[in-house]
Amino acid sequence: MTILHGMAPSGNCWKAAQILRLAGRPFHWVEVDTNGGETRSPAFLARFPMGKVPVVELDDGTVIAESNAILAHFAEGTPWLPPAGLARTRVLEWLFWEQYSHEPFIAVARNIRAFLGTAEAEAERLERCRLGGERALDIMEGRLSRHDWLTDAGPTIADLALFAYTHVADEGGFDLARWPGVSAWVARLRALPGIVPLR
Amino acid sequence: MTILHGMAPSGNCWKAAQILRLAGRPFHWVEVDTNGGETRSPAFLARFPMGKVPVVELDDGTVIAESNAILAHFAEGTPWLPPAGLARTRVLEWLFWEQYSHEPFIAVARNIRAFLGTAEAEAERLERCRLGGERALDIMEGRLSRHDWLTDAGPTIADLALFAYTHVADEGGFDLARWPGVSAWVARLRALPGIVPLR
Repeated sequence: MTILHGMAPSGNCWKAAQILRLAGRPFHWVEVDTNGGETRSPAFLARFPMGKVPVVELDDGTVIAESNAILAHFAEGTPWLPPAGLARTRVLEWLFWEQYSHEPFIAVARNIRAFLGTAEAEAERLERCRLGGERALDIMEGRLSRHDWLTDAGPTIADLALFAYTHVADEGGFDLARWPGVSAWVARLRALPGIVPLR
Repeated sequence: MTILHGMAPSGNCWKAAQILRLAGRPFHWVEVDTNGGETRSPAFLARFPMGKVPVVELDDGTVIAESNAILAHFAEGTPWLPPAGLARTRVLEWLFWEQYSHEPFIAVARNIRAFLGTAEAEAERLERCRLGGERALDIMEGRLSRHDWLTDAGPTIADLALFAYTHVADEGGFDLARWPGVSAWVARLRALPGIVPLR
């Protein structure tokens, strides 16, 4: 059976579990203690040199890493990933944007506040996360105040990728009430069949 | 004609110019002063809400953002992007890894040292860049000490995406002689027909 190595509260790992569920692909979850250093252990690195989760391991031993590559891989041929051309490029734009301009602020703020518990010691870093995260939510609001989904193709893996950390952004100190378009989109995605949010 | 809005020394903008050249698509370059704040100006944001370059503008006004989405868009149907399936997923893994685990260290170190000139004031940030950048180069070396290209599909946009900031990493304080597999790969990519490096 497909194995998903992940850390339960991680939004990146949530993406992998969610697309496997939507693709109707049963999987076995193996919990990895990222904050405890397990992904940097010699045993983990010997198997998974990138030193991160999620990692999906197929029956034949093939390993797939990088949460957004995992989304694209298992969404191929489903309505969650439009065929090649501008519609697919729009999805990729959001996927790359998520990893560079959203996750490093919104996920990192949540990890510091909710899991590491080092908010006082990392006040300066948290402030950078707040500024970057608010800017990311502003950009999402620019789209979602006028549209139901991030791209014109209906719900896609772009929405899944951004939902991952946005729907738990309050744990990083972001009050989504300030971004009504984003809030409505979170509720809309949550209501789709087969979606199993982190909480 | 296709317009590419970019900052000349930027590796991310280099990616866009390079794939347009390889796709045989003539373009007109419009220089944007990112470090001078132009991408955050109201005029720029009104046209390009993401507030970043590169941005490719097509004849019909369609705008494509995010350097790695631009790579994928114009590589579609060429040998630079394998067809859907595991070969393409391997390329996507490196593209996402580049934006999260390579660019934020190696490109940022270069920008601080070579363009902003704020190395003394940002010593702590530079040190984080050094550690993250060395780790990224170690991971590339793990692959490139044993293979010619980042994936088994021959040279792809994964190699272009990683070449962008790796071939000028010395400007960020990284001595590539420490990573002989990476150095050989830089020389190998540089020698391919149609490649126009930053220098």
